[in-house]
Parts: sequence; structure tokens; C-alpha cells
Amino acid sequence: MPGLVQSIERAAAILRLLASSAGRLGVGEIARSLDLPKGTAHGILRTLQAVGFVEQDKTSGKYQLGAALLHLGTSYLDVNELRSRSINWADPLAARSGEAVRIGTLLEGKVLVVHHVFRPDDSLQTLDVGALLPLHATALGKVLLAYDASTAATVLRGELEPYSRRTLVNPRALARALAAVRDAGWGAEVEEMTVGEAGIAAPIRGYGGLVVGAIGVSGAVERICDTKGQPNPTLVAYVRDAARAVSRDLGAARW
Amino acid sequence: MPGLVQSIERAAAILRLLASSAGRLGVGEIARSLDLPKGTAHGILRTLQAVGFVEQDKTSGKYQLGAALLHLGTSYLDVNELRSRSINWADPLAARSGEAVRIGTLLEGKVLVVHHVFRPDDSLQTLDVGALLPLHATALGKVLLAYDASTAATVLRGELEPYSRRTLVNPRALARALAAVRDAGWGAEVEEMTVGEAGIAAPIRGYGGLVVGAIGVSGAVERICDTKGQPNPTLVAYVRDAARAVSRDLGAARW
Repeated sequence: MPGLVQSIERAAAILRLLASSAGRLGVGEIARSLDLPKGTAHGILRTLQAVGFVEQDKTSGKYQLGAALLHLGTSYLDVNELRSRSINWADPLAARSGEAVRIGTLLEGKVLVVHHVFRPDDSLQTLDVGALLPLHATALGKVLLAYDASTAATVLRGELEPYSRRTLVNPRALARALAAVRDAGWGAEVEEMTVGEAGIAAPIRGYGGLVVGAIGVSGAVERICDTKGQPNPTLVAYVRDAARAVSRDLGAARW
Repeated sequence: MPGLVQSIERAAAILRLLASSAGRLGVGEIARSLDLPKGTAHGILRTLQAVGFVEQDKTSGKYQLGAALLHLGTSYLDVNELRSRSINWADPLAARSGEAVRIGTLLEGKVLVVHHVFRPDDSLQTLDVGALLPLHATALGKVLLAYDASTAATVLRGELEPYSRRTLVNPRALARALAAVRDAGWGAEVEEMTVGEAGIAAPIRGYGGLVVGAIGVSGAVERICDTKGQPNPTLVAYVRDAARAVSRDLGAARW
């Protein structure tokens, strides 16, 4: 895009590369991956290190993401309106449904989890905030895709990774599922991401009715679905109520 | 510093400014705060927006931090060795002590919380991961300061913000407290940050014995301290045991 600052774009690409490679990378690997001269990559890395965005391992000389990013990431959460408006409704939804609640938004062709309330029991659970989930294999993702035509077009053109035997890997089947989400006003996934688990989600709308996120419950398929394997209507109603409540708080007048 | 890429330094300064101002800023405010020409600030902001590091509010045109930073921040946590090695010891420390456990490391003259285990009860608690705490008014911070001479020198030269009547605001008193931490091998704060609360912390050492972080418990002063107002020796032993266990896992042979 014209008018953009190339060195900042390159710095962002390096940070993304480090985030996607779970571990440390040397300057040579980074330069090769991004097709940059090694000296250029080195200058950017030294600057990123000076501002705390990357750290260099003293022994190996390799680079990894830096601590300053953690604080920026949680500062993003502090000012994120979707998250701050959702928090008040996510706790009651977890209490009513007895299931884990997550709130997600679109980021780079994935669902970014911005809030996560654990299932109200003593089971060991991992906080998903900041995680990226696939769009086509999660209830949150299907809802976000259903209301974002351009992202849907990209996803339908691309490879649909199979996470389980039930993942929708056929673009036509996914397109039909998205149309069904729009008709019903909510979406579900049943063992499409993980065997034994299911989820239900509904869209969160912001000012003017635009879908800005999704809220949903997920858990063991035998709790989320009824005996016929269909999403439990009571849970669906709870999720839709919560989505409407957040939408109203965000200024979506009609929902 | 010579050889650094100026536009990346400026981009980082803008992100830091947005993180420290809880809300949105216009391009004019940003340019003025950082003494940049408005056109320069605008070009950097447009690039940061293109890479997802900032978002522009459609109505006001103001800028705020972007969603891509959240994922980078949590990716930092995933590869952070201090955190991954600490997790196994933080849960047992919370269970043994009955108190909240936090693990911190130095960042920009503050304590960056990289892991937080809630107090094992049903009380409402807020996740502190990613938060920055003051060095001179927390047990974690005093421990980190005691073993980092250059940061200690900076903090002792600067203004020591009073958080309560008991905060150490006198540089001499703080220097004595840091010497005491080094002598004892652990540190505490009693109502120095928040009235009614106290904390105990011990250093985590990495390869070669270098202090790379601190682990500590914090909670109501009547639970953390004994009847004489001194940190409870049993809790001190628990914290030191946990710190030694993490240090061993990080390769600090002697601890």
C-alpha cells in the first residue's frame, strides 16, 4: 500500500514470524523467511530489542518476542470496548449455562479470544484469552464468518483444515452452514474441532447493527447437545440473550 | 543509539503512549506528545493500522491499540521460559499457602506480572498477568531491585511514589530494605502498596545464578503476617522453596 512505512511493516512481519514459530529464531532464519538482506533484518531486530519488543538469548544469540508486548497486549484488552461491555454478561451466562464462555472477534482470518470465563466447576482449565481459533471449525468462528462476506470469501477459497472427522472441509457445506447461521441468528459446532466437544455462539452487534464479535458457550457434547445431537434450545436461548444484552450495551439499538 | 531504525522507535513510542493513556488519542494529540510532525505521526499510524497494531475509531477518527498486539502478547507468554518453568510450582505454592501467587520480571522500571494464580477460594479476583507494578512498593519488586544494581540506582535517584503511609519513599530506607533482602534471600512488603495487604517474595535465578524473576504470595495482612506484624515464617519458607524449585528448573545449579 503506498504511503506506508516499510521498516514498520517489516518489523511487524518479524514479530508475527516470531509469534508463529514457537521458540527462538536466528537472524539468518528470519532474513531468509522474510526475504530480507541479513543486515536489514539485523538493524530491525536491534531496534525491536531496544524498545523491548524482542529479546535476544544470550547463549544462542537467537531472538524471541519481548516482555513489552505482553503489557501492550493487556493494555489493548483494557481499552477494548467489546471485552469491557461483554464482561458483565459473560459471568451470568457461565452461571446460567454451567459452561465455559468465550468472546471472540475477527483477526487475520481467525477468531481472537478477547474474554474467557471458565466453566463454573473445579476442573483444570487453561485461559484462552489471546488465542487464535479457526473460523470454520468453531461456533464463534462460524458466526463471525456468517456476517463478514469478505473474510468468508477468502476462507471459502482457501484450504479448510480438518480438525476432526466432522469438520466442514467442503466449501459448499460451509457456505450452507453460514447461510443457516444468518437465517437462525446463531451458530453451533458439534465435534467439528475436538471429538467430544461442542459449542453454541451468537453475534454481538455494535453501533449501527454491524457484527463486531461473537459470544458463545462450549463444553462436552453430551451437555451442549440434546439426546438427538442437536444444540440444547435452552442453552441457545441463554447465548442469544447474552449476545443481545452485550449488543444493546454497545449501542446496537434494534437488537 | 546509532544504527537503530528511527521509524520503528517512533512506532514503539506511539504504542507505548496509547497503552499509557487509557482510551483513544487523535493524531494531533499523538504528534504533540511525541514532538513529531503531524504528517509523520499520521504515516506511522496508518502503517500500524495496516498491520493491526492500532485501530481507528470510525466515529471519532481517534486511535487505540489493536487486536494483533493481544496475540503477540500471549505468544510472548507461550515462549517465556520463566513463566513456563514457574507454572508447575505456582499452583502448589497457592495450595500450600492458601494465597494468591504471582511471578514477575523487570520491565521498564516496573514489575511485569507474567503469571498469576488466584487465591484458592471463591472470592472475586482480577487476573494481573500483563500488569505493571511499582518496584519499591511490592515484595516482588523489592526482590527484583535488590539483585539489579543498575535499576536500583535509577529507582533510588527518582521519585518514590507514596501508595500508602507505609510506602518506602525515602531512598535511604529503600536502600536499607534492599540490603536486607540480599542478606535474608527474600523480601516482604507490609501495607506499603495497599492498606490491609501484604506480600512475601523470593528471587528466581536462571542459568549461572542470575536473578531473572521473583515469585511471591500476597493477601490480607492478617494472614500474611504473624501477630507481631512480621511475615509469617511458614509462608516465607513456602515461597523460598518454590523459588528454589523454579531456579533449579531454569538451570541455576546451586539454588
